[in-house]
Amino acid sequence: MARIALGVEYDGSRYRGWQAQQSGIRSVQVAVEAALSKVANEPVSVVCAGRTDAGVHARGQVIHFDTSAERTPRSWVHGANANLPDDISILWAQPVSEEFHARFSARARSYQYLIYNSPVRPALFREQLTWNFRPLDVARMQAGAQHLLGTHDFSSFRGIQCQAKSPVRTLHRLEVQRRGDMVVIEANANAFLMHMVRNIAGVLMAVGSGKQEPEWVAQVLAACDRTQGGVTAPPYGLYMMAVEYEPQLLVVPQLPSPLFERL
Amino acid sequence: MARIALGVEYDGSRYRGWQAQQSGIRSVQVAVEAALSKVANEPVSVVCAGRTDAGVHARGQVIHFDTSAERTPRSWVHGANANLPDDISILWAQPVSEEFHARFSARARSYQYLIYNSPVRPALFREQLTWNFRPLDVARMQAGAQHLLGTHDFSSFRGIQCQAKSPVRTLHRLEVQRRGDMVVIEANANAFLMHMVRNIAGVLMAVGSGKQEPEWVAQVLAACDRTQGGVTAPPYGLYMMAVEYEPQLLVVPQLPSPLFERL
Repeated sequence: MARIALGVEYDGSRYRGWQAQQSGIRSVQVAVEAALSKVANEPVSVVCAGRTDAGVHARGQVIHFDTSAERTPRSWVHGANANLPDDISILWAQPVSEEFHARFSARARSYQYLIYNSPVRPALFREQLTWNFRPLDVARMQAGAQHLLGTHDFSSFRGIQCQAKSPVRTLHRLEVQRRGDMVVIEANANAFLMHMVRNIAGVLMAVGSGKQEPEWVAQVLAACDRTQGGVTAPPYGLYMMAVEYEPQLLVVPQLPSPLFERL
Repeated sequence: MARIALGVEYDGSRYRGWQAQQSGIRSVQVAVEAALSKVANEPVSVVCAGRTDAGVHARGQVIHFDTSAERTPRSWVHGANANLPDDISILWAQPVSEEFHARFSARARSYQYLIYNSPVRPALFREQLTWNFRPLDVARMQAGAQHLLGTHDFSSFRGIQCQAKSPVRTLHRLEVQRRGDMVVIEANANAFLMHMVRNIAGVLMAVGSGKQEPEWVAQVLAACDRTQGGVTAPPYGLYMMAVEYEPQLLVVPQLPSPLFERL
């Protein structure tokens, strides 16, 4: 048996998320397993670094699977892509040791949240952006974001169906930048709770629009109560961008990202 | 009667182009006229600056129409958007004089062609980019592009169904740039023939991949023969970005573009 790691890009707009709760519902995982099973000529089950919600996209999802099939990395990539729907693409493949686990070995994950800040709704990229028509003050959002850095109980930012054992996470980086009419939130943490990035984005947008003060973010965090945190931002603008591992386990190929590379 | 100019953004991937050749086929024009007719409470016919092909997108299409309805610019924008499908959006509205004509008054048009240059096909933005897996040398493409600048008979770059009276156009600007794994072609001309940008993109990609030399572009141009020009590049990566008019007729509002603003 060999263990293989893969990088996966997908447009989540037509899926009910990485993993479907019920059978018969489109999930990215089911599509990827079907394609890999064809290439392997045997059933393949995959494990992902982070289960994304319905509508969430990925540029840098990492998965692993075990197989007795012997294929080159190139064959896994091109074979899988030939059998995948056009909104899922395998970017790279690498053999890894059996100590590697896409989820448990990950030491950090990066997400990006793209907000189109314009009085008029977007026609282009409408399922790849979150639209906010209220003018957003990025300096206020950045000031609010600083309260979340470090190790905290993130219960106030945790989706109610979250199954994680602990609500404690370490947020290494949370940056808000404006580029024209785009506002970009970049987040890096050891791991994220369910809906955590979307709940952070919802809170920061309330601060950016002037509805709340930056200090409110510290109050929400301290409350350890999801009902204090305001609305969950929509999934459309959220992208899983990268996963980091110990270099001896996996060095993830760095790929420039189409279109929003410069954001 | 008043004449109104509008800026229109659309994702062309679900349309058979700006104008449908037959009734019963989805066209951007039909959708826009239906929405404006509802706002005006009378039938509205629109004229566009440039008829885009099936699958081609627009960030800066300009149209005009005549109406006896009295509405504020804000009402035209928001009223039309409330009645349009989500892949078409009116960006702005301005009253103009009856001398203004969206097509005949235009003195220049700008297009952008986005190429995702990667060995693996894109899952994200797959209908908003053209994918080319062959490594493209942008310096070669730029060298080839220089042969097209100025006033020429562009018959070699003209779609066979083109109905323009003259094949002569003046290309003011043609630039090729690489940003990560994106290659961007920007073109500005007094006007474009049918398929002209896509045919230029096809020729430049042949040069960029090493299949042809940059000097071949001059030979294609001089031949004045479409069969010398190679394949028409796909529509997915093509965006109508801007139209320019004499300032006394219309000053087009400058809007930053979502996502590819920085490209």
